[in-house]
Amino acid sequence: MTHFGDRLYEAVARTGTPVLVGLDPRWAQLPAALRGDTDERDLPGVANAFAAFCREVIDVVAPLVPAVKPQAAFFEQLGPAGMQALAETVAYARSRGLLVIMDGKRNDIGSTAAAYADAYLGEESAWKADALTVSPYLGDDSLTPFFDVARQRGGGAFVLVKTSNPGGGLFQDLVADARPLYRHVADYVELQAAETRGACGYGLVGAVVGATYPEQLEELRRVMASTWILVPGFGAQGGTARDVAAAFDPQGQGAIVNSSRAIIFAYARPEFQESYGESRWQAAVEAATRQMIDQLRDVIPASASTGQTGQFPPA
Amino acid sequence: MTHFGDRLYEAVARTGTPVLVGLDPRWAQLPAALRGDTDERDLPGVANAFAAFCREVIDVVAPLVPAVKPQAAFFEQLGPAGMQALAETVAYARSRGLLVIMDGKRNDIGSTAAAYADAYLGEESAWKADALTVSPYLGDDSLTPFFDVARQRGGGAFVLVKTSNPGGGLFQDLVADARPLYRHVADYVELQAAETRGACGYGLVGAVVGATYPEQLEELRRVMASTWILVPGFGAQGGTARDVAAAFDPQGQGAIVNSSRAIIFAYARPEFQESYGESRWQAAVEAATRQMIDQLRDVIPASASTGQTGQFPPA
Repeated sequence: MTHFGDRLYEAVARTGTPVLVGLDPRWAQLPAALRGDTDERDLPGVANAFAAFCREVIDVVAPLVPAVKPQAAFFEQLGPAGMQALAETVAYARSRGLLVIMDGKRNDIGSTAAAYADAYLGEESAWKADALTVSPYLGDDSLTPFFDVARQRGGGAFVLVKTSNPGGGLFQDLVADARPLYRHVADYVELQAAETRGACGYGLVGAVVGATYPEQLEELRRVMASTWILVPGFGAQGGTARDVAAAFDPQGQGAIVNSSRAIIFAYARPEFQESYGESRWQAAVEAATRQMIDQLRDVIPASASTGQTGQFPPA
Repeated sequence: MTHFGDRLYEAVARTGTPVLVGLDPRWAQLPAALRGDTDERDLPGVANAFAAFCREVIDVVAPLVPAVKPQAAFFEQLGPAGMQALAETVAYARSRGLLVIMDGKRNDIGSTAAAYADAYLGEESAWKADALTVSPYLGDDSLTPFFDVARQRGGGAFVLVKTSNPGGGLFQDLVADARPLYRHVADYVELQAAETRGACGYGLVGAVVGATYPEQLEELRRVMASTWILVPGFGAQGGTARDVAAAFDPQGQGAIVNSSRAIIFAYARPEFQESYGESRWQAAVEAATRQMIDQLRDVIPASASTGQTGQFPPA
């Protein structure tokens, strides 16, 4: 089992793009063909539709991008049947060669954190993802179990540092010892990433930093030299390609940029509605993915985004 | 659907104790009779054993305590079958008249937080718990969806404030504007609790404050007058009855104290091993629950813990 940081580096180099497609299925926005005559209260029926929808999205994006990010909450909302659909979605994405970053924002203390890590990371786990997002509030001994399991099983963990939502600053921006809380978390994460560096120079511990805070993104790229940055907030949340440029290293590596709604429900975006519409929603997914790849290519420093095959291990 | 704060108050008054039994099933510690010849890698088999174990624990504690707290991680570890066992456990506990506080420590931004709230809170939800633990790192707009759903559906939300683990202070104790981070979170939580006060004087927004930090527990009781406090860390983690005394108001209300391993796996504790042993593990659960009820009765201020039927609404 290769080091997660190296696997992600290789996948970004191979596909030539850092686009991460978020799998956030929502019933009301699912194309009519997939909703069929399923009743919204038929949770197993909705779960099946979610799994079918995600399979089709995966079929479209698998040749184009390195990774997908299923949002656990939308599956969890459907109860046990939804969790089954989540397991099928993860397995299908991996079978199509995609890395899977589970967005669960889990955390707990000690052995309970280890149970979450067991649930989501590595070959023996129930949901078999490649990485998991985790929340830092509970501190050191709530995070190290995730890092330990990640190390043992070739997985990764992305710690929330500076989130993309407008209210994220309420606690994250509080200043202690001349540094905001998010910076304290970032410094801790970088230590962990540096200790777990792979051949590519990045560790298996990453950070979540929103595209909606470009100044902080620049600061955090600088102070987290060994840390993969997962950048949410692009597209529907308002982050632009220029905003995320600062997340990359001079080789155009070290960050992945997520877009969910703007890609998977692209058929509903005014700019795609006329060309595709709901019946050709898969073509809209492809067009939106290619559009985002192009937008990022224009602003990312170097080769990883030029479509050239990157070197691995890097020169 | 009655206000969650009032329902909890009534349940504590009715049972005369604030003991909250944590349902944290772990395969290695499950009594042999329940493990049977199930292989540890047979996840549906293990999930069935967890559900059976929790049912038996619930049968023992339902006449004695107001509420139980299933730990989602241990069920989640078993994959979709585990989540089914979790749903059955929640439904069974509620059918036996217990309030169910789901320990999921969930959080996310905006509409995703709402999906988690939908998953766990209220009558229409997949897991139908009465309350859910949530993590504050993502700030205001990640928490209000939980409070909104809780209000609409008669549920509650317990926000992590000061957790019981040794490493919890890494970020929670950072001092900004002369107050530690946990105090900032506490002040925010109290505002939300005060806005949602029921007839009992407590809101439907609560706080998690560990028994392992008795000084902070005293401080936080003082500044969170409208906030239910969920106190983990009693027993196996080292918190004593004297440590948790400060969590209560002068009427002996306003807090619930969790114990998990020390109750559900009491058969393995040296003091109970001889009298009960593994074959009479249910009797050990009862003895440990009664012991904890007695220990708390000795230190809690007034009537709620004396076994008298409390007044509701309070005088």
